[in-house]
Amino acid sequence: MPKNDHRKQRKTLLTSPGTLTYVGEQTNFKTLIKRIEYNESFYQEEVASTLEACTIHKVEGAQPHVTWLNVTGIHESNVIESLGRLYHLHPLLLEDVMNTLQKPKIETYEDGHLYVTLKMIHGHEDAQKSAWGEHISLILGRDYLISFQEEHSGDIFLPVIERLKASVGKTRRHGADYLLYALMDVIVDHYFITLERLGDQLEDMEDTVIGNKISGSLEALYTLKREVTFIRKYIWPLREMVSTLIRPDAPLVSKRVFPYFRDILDHTIQLVDNLDTYRELVASLVEVQLSAVSNRMNSVMKTLTIFSAIFMPLTFIVGVYGMNFRYMPELENPNGYYATWGIMVLITFGMIVYFRWKKWL
Amino acid sequence: MPKNDHRKQRKTLLTSPGTLTYVGEQTNFKTLIKRIEYNESFYQEEVASTLEACTIHKVEGAQPHVTWLNVTGIHESNVIESLGRLYHLHPLLLEDVMNTLQKPKIETYEDGHLYVTLKMIHGHEDAQKSAWGEHISLILGRDYLISFQEEHSGDIFLPVIERLKASVGKTRRHGADYLLYALMDVIVDHYFITLERLGDQLEDMEDTVIGNKISGSLEALYTLKREVTFIRKYIWPLREMVSTLIRPDAPLVSKRVFPYFRDILDHTIQLVDNLDTYRELVASLVEVQLSAVSNRMNSVMKTLTIFSAIFMPLTFIVGVYGMNFRYMPELENPNGYYATWGIMVLITFGMIVYFRWKKWL
Amino acid sequence: MPKNDHRKQRKTLLTSPGTLTYVGEQTNFKTLIKRIEYNESFYQEEVASTLEACTIHKVEGAQPHVTWLNVTGIHESNVIESLGRLYHLHPLLLEDVMNTLQKPKIETYEDGHLYVTLKMIHGHEDAQKSAWGEHISLILGRDYLISFQEEHSGDIFLPVIERLKASVGKTRRHGADYLLYALMDVIVDHYFITLERLGDQLEDMEDTVIGNKISGSLEALYTLKREVTFIRKYIWPLREMVSTLIRPDAPLVSKRVFPYFRDILDHTIQLVDNLDTYRELVASLVEVQLSAVSNRMNSVMKTLTIFSAIFMPLTFIVGVYGMNFRYMPELENPNGYYATWGIMVLITFGMIVYFRWKKWL
Amino acid sequence: MPKNDHRKQRKTLLTSPGTLTYVGEQTNFKTLIKRIEYNESFYQEEVASTLEACTIHKVEGAQPHVTWLNVTGIHESNVIESLGRLYHLHPLLLEDVMNTLQKPKIETYEDGHLYVTLKMIHGHEDAQKSAWGEHISLILGRDYLISFQEEHSGDIFLPVIERLKASVGKTRRHGADYLLYALMDVIVDHYFITLERLGDQLEDMEDTVIGNKISGSLEALYTLKREVTFIRKYIWPLREMVSTLIRPDAPLVSKRVFPYFRDILDHTIQLVDNLDTYRELVASLVEVQLSAVSNRMNSVMKTLTIFSAIFMPLTFIVGVYGMNFRYMPELENPNGYYATWGIMVLITFGMIVYFRWKKWL
Amino acid sequence: MPKNDHRKQRKTLLTSPGTLTYVGEQTNFKTLIKRIEYNESFYQEEVASTLEACTIHKVEGAQPHVTWLNVTGIHESNVIESLGRLYHLHPLLLEDVMNTLQKPKIETYEDGHLYVTLKMIHGHEDAQKSAWGEHISLILGRDYLISFQEEHSGDIFLPVIERLKASVGKTRRHGADYLLYALMDVIVDHYFITLERLGDQLEDMEDTVIGNKISGSLEALYTLKREVTFIRKYIWPLREMVSTLIRPDAPLVSKRVFPYFRDILDHTIQLVDNLDTYRELVASLVEVQLSAVSNRMNSVMKTLTIFSAIFMPLTFIVGVYGMNFRYMPELENPNGYYATWGIMVLITFGMIVYFRWKKWL
Repeated sequence: MPKNDHRKQRKTLLTSPGTLTYVGEQTNFKTLIKRIEYNESFYQEEVASTLEACTIHKVEGAQPHVTWLNVTGIHESNVIESLGRLYHLHPLLLEDVMNTLQKPKIETYEDGHLYVTLKMIHGHEDAQKSAWGEHISLILGRDYLISFQEEHSGDIFLPVIERLKASVGKTRRHGADYLLYALMDVIVDHYFITLERLGDQLEDMEDTVIGNKISGSLEALYTLKREVTFIRKYIWPLREMVSTLIRPDAPLVSKRVFPYFRDILDHTIQLVDNLDTYRELVASLVEVQLSAVSNRMNSVMKTLTIFSAIFMPLTFIVGVYGMNFRYMPELENPNGYYATWGIMVLITFGMIVYFRWKKWL
Repeated sequence: MPKNDHRKQRKTLLTSPGTLTYVGEQTNFKTLIKRIEYNESFYQEEVASTLEACTIHKVEGAQPHVTWLNVTGIHESNVIESLGRLYHLHPLLLEDVMNTLQKPKIETYEDGHLYVTLKMIHGHEDAQKSAWGEHISLILGRDYLISFQEEHSGDIFLPVIERLKASVGKTRRHGADYLLYALMDVIVDHYFITLERLGDQLEDMEDTVIGNKISGSLEALYTLKREVTFIRKYIWPLREMVSTLIRPDAPLVSKRVFPYFRDILDHTIQLVDNLDTYRELVASLVEVQLSAVSNRMNSVMKTLTIFSAIFMPLTFIVGVYGMNFRYMPELENPNGYYATWGIMVLITFGMIVYFRWKKWL
Repeated sequence: MPKNDHRKQRKTLLTSPGTLTYVGEQTNFKTLIKRIEYNESFYQEEVASTLEACTIHKVEGAQPHVTWLNVTGIHESNVIESLGRLYHLHPLLLEDVMNTLQKPKIETYEDGHLYVTLKMIHGHEDAQKSAWGEHISLILGRDYLISFQEEHSGDIFLPVIERLKASVGKTRRHGADYLLYALMDVIVDHYFITLERLGDQLEDMEDTVIGNKISGSLEALYTLKREVTFIRKYIWPLREMVSTLIRPDAPLVSKRVFPYFRDILDHTIQLVDNLDTYRELVASLVEVQLSAVSNRMNSVMKTLTIFSAIFMPLTFIVGVYGMNFRYMPELENPNGYYATWGIMVLITFGMIVYFRWKKWL
Repeated sequence: MPKNDHRKQRKTLLTSPGTLTYVGEQTNFKTLIKRIEYNESFYQEEVASTLEACTIHKVEGAQPHVTWLNVTGIHESNVIESLGRLYHLHPLLLEDVMNTLQKPKIETYEDGHLYVTLKMIHGHEDAQKSAWGEHISLILGRDYLISFQEEHSGDIFLPVIERLKASVGKTRRHGADYLLYALMDVIVDHYFITLERLGDQLEDMEDTVIGNKISGSLEALYTLKREVTFIRKYIWPLREMVSTLIRPDAPLVSKRVFPYFRDILDHTIQLVDNLDTYRELVASLVEVQLSAVSNRMNSVMKTLTIFSAIFMPLTFIVGVYGMNFRYMPELENPNGYYATWGIMVLITFGMIVYFRWKKWL
Repeated sequence: MPKNDHRKQRKTLLTSPGTLTYVGEQTNFKTLIKRIEYNESFYQEEVASTLEACTIHKVEGAQPHVTWLNVTGIHESNVIESLGRLYHLHPLLLEDVMNTLQKPKIETYEDGHLYVTLKMIHGHEDAQKSAWGEHISLILGRDYLISFQEEHSGDIFLPVIERLKASVGKTRRHGADYLLYALMDVIVDHYFITLERLGDQLEDMEDTVIGNKISGSLEALYTLKREVTFIRKYIWPLREMVSTLIRPDAPLVSKRVFPYFRDILDHTIQLVDNLDTYRELVASLVEVQLSAVSNRMNSVMKTLTIFSAIFMPLTFIVGVYGMNFRYMPELENPNGYYATWGIMVLITFGMIVYFRWKKWL
């Protein structure tokens, strides 16, 4: 997927700013909006088939509750636009929701909501396939949260929904800010799975390179480095994003939830740290690999030189006595042939001793 | 174009500061000034043939409107100077307008206007040609904007003019600050086209290098790196420039337009980020390429060594029986010839087994 | 141990935050809690077998004293949880205590305690084994300190206990903050032992590489660099951690103890500095090593070329006079054979002079 | 000149601080002091032969004017010392004036003057000669400026003197702060000439390296990099120096002159930027060059291998039929000779096809 | 000396903090304490044989004077401890005085004194020997200064003592803060001598590498880089140390002395700058060196290939006519022998032309 990232860019170029156009892989399923309402004492979940159903139900006198609109599908601009009007979202925000090329970022809008976009990395256990990043948008209001996810294949926020339903954990006791944390936590947790896979690949590389097993590993190292580079681009901005969320003057996040976001910050730092270590080790492995190639060439050259140094003098000697001069006294000598063999054995032996001494054998 | 950038530099050296001299490619067309006036309810466009026509028309009691002077051609110092006098522009500002070597920058003048200069990158779809940067200057006043562009070949701000005319989008509802945004947005959008081209080239390189196809690719990698370096120099200053524009105390830009400039900032960060990734990947490809050369040399050397190791002993043996000693018992043996062949086949076979075992074959 | 670090990560993924699960090597001994109470005039030490025994004994009117709970074993979640309830520790703090993958960090909790986690590096004198980091957690309250260590094999804080018992030094005159210093000091002191071992390894490498002794040293250099990288990751965060501790507004650390923490800071800076120097020297050694391989190949090639240049012409000459042409006047010449030898000696001599002149011999 | 920079350093070592000794190339001409007085309405220039003539002439009631002492020659400590006494200059300032090794810097003295020292780079059009830096000192007071230049060979400030005389430009309308700008501007302008020369050299290198023309270019690249490094050391400090000059609380520079200094700042940033680009491109060229060497070696090796692979089998075959066995049936065959030739042609052809297929031919 | 630095570290590990133990080379001379008292009007110097003699003599009504205790020898812990008690020095400060591994640093103690520790680099004119750093400690009080130096072999502060005695210069007119400057200045001046030596070595390297003279220079480059790295570690912290000294709120240093410390700061920046340049040039030289090796190998390979390409075909031809076929028409031809020679000369000539064209000859 990172390969043709830039091929998608053109589509939004040179249109009027704020024009809503979906930038990403072609899809055509219907957008699914799930409305979940809960507080400590009740939990309700329904599919919002009309836009009406997407508004926040405020019952006078009732206990406050959190409303979560879980939107799957960001390719239908009319749906996004209607939601935007309903919740007074800025056109540029909506543009970012629909632009799968948008980098992770956080933005506070003066209308009293917070916009967080980041990438869900879908890793494959299969080391051959590279990971790809699903574009996720989260909009946090005073007592509501709207989440947008790109793909229909499985709701990535299912673990959080399960926890809400089961009423275990602290999730239902807190407000919408804790829900934001819970969703981001699910995403960051998935990063560790991808990192684990990369770590395994790196270890395999180490075994290959240091064990001198195969020679084509430089391309594999390049591919690994490329993937580390792309994943780092998704994770790196999270550090500052989460730091922004837990600033003392952050408007929508309560102090009670700060330790939880600090935990995400911690994980993010650890992720970036590990990625940097991977990158450094890959660079070192490339050096080891290059030197291994040199060493092998060295050994090839020695073999050639030893063969040449032994057989060239011998071939010269037998050539001498293959000459047809009329007068060559050695040829007449009955022991000439054996003497020649003796000399040749001596030369061979001398060469072997010489190369042993030079540590080439 | 980047190649002889520095050849132009000499021209302004050692003259009195503020002396207006055009620094750039030689041209001699007549400067074209288009005056566009608009507000939400009216739009008017005319070519300003006299300097008179360049002044701002203020009608008492009428609704405020934005005046945009779109100047094409920066090589006629008298025109630039007259405009400067009309709008009270600082001589050094005018010098920068005419100096195509000036790097992108932003400057606030105390006379109440803002000077923004940046580069329009004209990319070629043809991957062989390198991009070149047109020198653009934008001067923002309270209710006017003066834009300067270098070349006559097509007005790069045409899409904005079209949008103004058609009265679609938000362009006519906002003031001159939004116009500044719209013009900068057109330019930044073009950067993405160039980046796309560079990304395509990089992918081709990857296929070439990893696929081991051709060997002369290092020069191409160098050229690619060079272009990334030069384009980065145009884009990098934009980050700080736009940040300056949306500071809380920025005098000429209203808070309503901030999200739009923040959008440009976002794009700029993404551009620089991608360029840095390209640069890093090019560096890695150079390593892969160097190692591929080593690997190929290794395989050449192995071929040579295998040939030598097989034929040197054989040549020696046939040399032995080509000697003319009077007394060589093997020669008399009727099966000597066939025995010799047998030995030679054995040696050849032994060598092949040896090189198989050494993994050279 | 660093090798399969990431293999442990999966275990805590995707569970509700704050769920206590031990992440680390499998163990199953019983957690040991030692309660040590002391002030300048008394010292008391007992094994706390019940949770009751872990509470702080406050005797009215008595002199204030420091209570130190020295916990060995972090794999039993029920023990950790009970202690957490007793001392009002945050669930995320307890999660960090049990997570051996947690990086070193410091955190201030509003309930009035400080959480410090760092790694004890257990080095082996045996240079072949790599060091491993034991997960240590220290919780500092107003007049108590709780320390957690991972392994049962020897209490690493024994030197401090000894000093407390013997009442030598300043340890018993100060409060719990000085105890925190004393424990951290023991850990930082151990870093120097590991560094010493790395320094010795580096020197051995230098002797090997510069002395041109063995050729497989690049893998060893890679391993050394890898270990420096991992240890640096443990030590690097300490700088900021200790700086945080001695900020003027640090709540739990008294000014009297500042110089001691400043001393740790000093040591930490020195450690990181040395590690960076090691890293740089390893990188330089890799270059020297690569060039040594090239030099050796150069010398191999010269040998081959000299042999070829001498014996190829000679073999050609003897081949000439091995031809069977009917009319070859030299063959009839009685001195032809000797003349040929003379020419061959001359050629050999000429070649040797040529290669001497070229400095190849 | 950079080559033996450090050879001059010893001279001032270990003397009492503030002792005036000239550090630089040996010279012995007489110091020349030119006193120039001007304001908008008058201009006067004379050679100050006595120290008396160096004082500032204050005429009561007259219009304020700027006094510029243009001193050529910094090797006579008694002259420097007298000037120092006259203008109350700090001994350490005078030491810096006479120390040609002093790096560019700016210093504000509490006695109400500003000390600026920088380097005038004298470039040669001749690309072979390296540039050298003349030590320039500028002391700015309320209404006077003292400039010191090292060499007698041509007054580098002549263009400014010409402009003052001619009364063109803004130079005479402003105070001493504008004069400081004008002098620094002359120096910075000269940097562009040097940069232009370096850029030309770099382009020649590119043509050489990419065109594969000559092989000894690595030394030239090293020399180029060395010069870029040295010139960068002269220009780099200028950024901060000029920034200091235009701080809002800068005492001696009026706000009116700020845009001019900002212009210099701009140029300086551009210079450093270009130098960094040059440095980066040189580094890339070194890589291209190294790889070109590898490629050429590869092609040499291929040639050798092809020759060997073709002639070794052929030589073996002719050797076979040169054996003297009594019974060799092929030798008796009347077509044996031609058949042998046929086999040899086939082998040669096979080899050529094989190497074509391997893309070696 | 840097080589076994870390071997000394173990000694202080795991002892109670503040325990005084000497860490450094073994020595056993008696500590020498010189007491020097001076003000503008008097100067007195004596060897303090008892601790009594080390106290500051305060005479009521007399003019204030500076007391300087110049201590040579830091290996006797009882002497250091007594001095510590006398001047109320913190135990950790005394530990640092005796620890020769302590890095340069500055520390302000609340008891009203300042602790400065740095390294005196003893260079050898002999380029073969590496420099070593003597551990120097300076304690500045209101009107006293205590200096500690490691070695007895020559008092490095002698030039300052000479100046004090002779009453030349400003030294006696200022207070203890100027004395601190004077002592630091002596040390910094010595750095220039070491730098000069390194610069000379670098130039020799350049001549060697570029002149292609000897091949084993990579080890020398490594040694040079190693020394630059170690010296840089001594000088680098000085920048911040001196900056700390001349902060506006620095308690013990008067504003009058600021320009002098600023001078040291200047020198320090220049030193670090030069060291960085050296490091960069060494790195470039390594590249040049590596490429020179490749170039030489290239030339060796060409020689081999030319020899092979000429003699292999010739040897084949003479082999052909050495065959013993019964029917070989050429052999019967009376001019066959000469024709063969003709063909061989042609082939040789053709090869030479070919290699000339390929620029290998």
